[in-house]
Amino acid sequence: MFKIKVPATSANLGVGFDCMGLAVSMYSEFYFEASDQPLEISGCDVAYQNNRNLVYQAFLKGCEFLQEPTPNLNITIASQVPVARGLGSSAVCIIAGLKAASIWFDNAISTTNLLKLAVEMEGHPDNVTPSIYGGLCVSFLNDQQQPVVAQYPISDELKFVALVPNYPISTHEARRVLPTTMNYATAIHQVSRCTMMTHALETGDADLLQRTCQDLIHEPYRAKLIPEYQQAKQLAESEYGTMYISGSGSTLMAIMPNQQAAHSLLVHAQALFPQWIISPVQIDKNGVQSEVINRGEVLYR
Amino acid sequence: MFKIKVPATSANLGVGFDCMGLAVSMYSEFYFEASDQPLEISGCDVAYQNNRNLVYQAFLKGCEFLQEPTPNLNITIASQVPVARGLGSSAVCIIAGLKAASIWFDNAISTTNLLKLAVEMEGHPDNVTPSIYGGLCVSFLNDQQQPVVAQYPISDELKFVALVPNYPISTHEARRVLPTTMNYATAIHQVSRCTMMTHALETGDADLLQRTCQDLIHEPYRAKLIPEYQQAKQLAESEYGTMYISGSGSTLMAIMPNQQAAHSLLVHAQALFPQWIISPVQIDKNGVQSEVINRGEVLYR
Repeated sequence: MFKIKVPATSANLGVGFDCMGLAVSMYSEFYFEASDQPLEISGCDVAYQNNRNLVYQAFLKGCEFLQEPTPNLNITIASQVPVARGLGSSAVCIIAGLKAASIWFDNAISTTNLLKLAVEMEGHPDNVTPSIYGGLCVSFLNDQQQPVVAQYPISDELKFVALVPNYPISTHEARRVLPTTMNYATAIHQVSRCTMMTHALETGDADLLQRTCQDLIHEPYRAKLIPEYQQAKQLAESEYGTMYISGSGSTLMAIMPNQQAAHSLLVHAQALFPQWIISPVQIDKNGVQSEVINRGEVLYR
Repeated sequence: MFKIKVPATSANLGVGFDCMGLAVSMYSEFYFEASDQPLEISGCDVAYQNNRNLVYQAFLKGCEFLQEPTPNLNITIASQVPVARGLGSSAVCIIAGLKAASIWFDNAISTTNLLKLAVEMEGHPDNVTPSIYGGLCVSFLNDQQQPVVAQYPISDELKFVALVPNYPISTHEARRVLPTTMNYATAIHQVSRCTMMTHALETGDADLLQRTCQDLIHEPYRAKLIPEYQQAKQLAESEYGTMYISGSGSTLMAIMPNQQAAHSLLVHAQALFPQWIISPVQIDKNGVQSEVINRGEVLYR
């Protein structure tokens, strides 16, 4: 039996719309073992306990890539990553299935190919990249539709707090509200802020972070889908932090200058939004991890 | 008497349109001393030897900011920075005049105020910022129209070669050829490449540099003003480097992975464009410098 552990991701970081993503310490764990049935899945909604399950679809894609026969499989899912909250739950499932196929066939899929296959399934690299590599990643597809990735350091001083609303937002709806064009000033605003945001995150410069994390191309439209957006952002800024819509929402991710500010935000946000899950998260620096387990004992990682 | 030495700048760096700029080792030197005439200017075209001279206009602006009377002034200009070639010659004049006013009145203008005043005169921060600070700078104006700046390191491995055509391009014309809007895919292309370009420049990753330095928002339009653009870019890329239009042109700036590639480019480019000035340039890391000189002896810097 083996276990695959995949971090959730918080994409966009405001001004890094569709190209920046961050792996965070919310994990889904997936246990894979041989079965005498073609497929058994547990630990998720009954509606997904079949061969349309995304984890299984990704496993199949991995087998197909390796030109290997599909084994009979038992998959057990234990997930902390909420669905349709902008924390990359579909990327998590895709990475888990692909990585499992790789492990099943003796680590046969390289990290580069894992990313390529994941991008083929997800359509874009911003969530899958940090789920694989960990940390803060910027990514794009080149002219040959191959992913290109860079990883950036983040200051240990900065503390992240996830504010997870008690309602989902569909990615489809979040895409639909966006316009199709923008003017040059808006694009240049975005390029300069995003470029400087990596600098602010690396140096932990909270003042610069507040100035740079000011998106103009998706948050003004998507904020309407999250009625508490303005109030939450102002709260984070009043504590010298900043905040962005994680992925396409509904989660709001605060970046706070230090532990004390993060704690203060947490207390105030929980009082304002008692139905929400407000939780500190760390940066996950490892990305997807695997363990081969025999009778409860870890054999190798 | 004192001397002000200001580096030329190469703005845009392709995907950093209107927000990124680099100080390079082409300098203009300006000598200021008291005069018995209200104004004497030498070392430039006769048409500029009067009170409309941009250096003098900037000096006046500095005096006005400090609420000091304008002294009688002798200005001698010795400039290596060609005009209307996309190397920030107007920013150089502005910085020189402002810095001279500061020195004249006992260093009374802080660097922050120097930048603010320069941006007021130039209209945008991308050229003036590296002329003041040196190195690679990203800058933007915040909601209060105040400049915000970050500096990025550049790998010593990378070598820069300026290809200066034997014809000017007016900034006005270079602005006029641009469209006013773009689609989302183009903007996201630009944001991801620019963000990753700082990473490529810092690490000296020539392959990543080639992939990231692919502008979609101004070079496709401005390239038509520089008939040799495609040929020059292909030449740089064939030597594992890349190339961008410096400022609004006509200069093309190549970024080469090492000294050997830079030399090879230089030789081939000079053969292809015999009328052009093809010159290696270093990154200027200091920005504007001043020296107070008494009878040929430097008193202090």
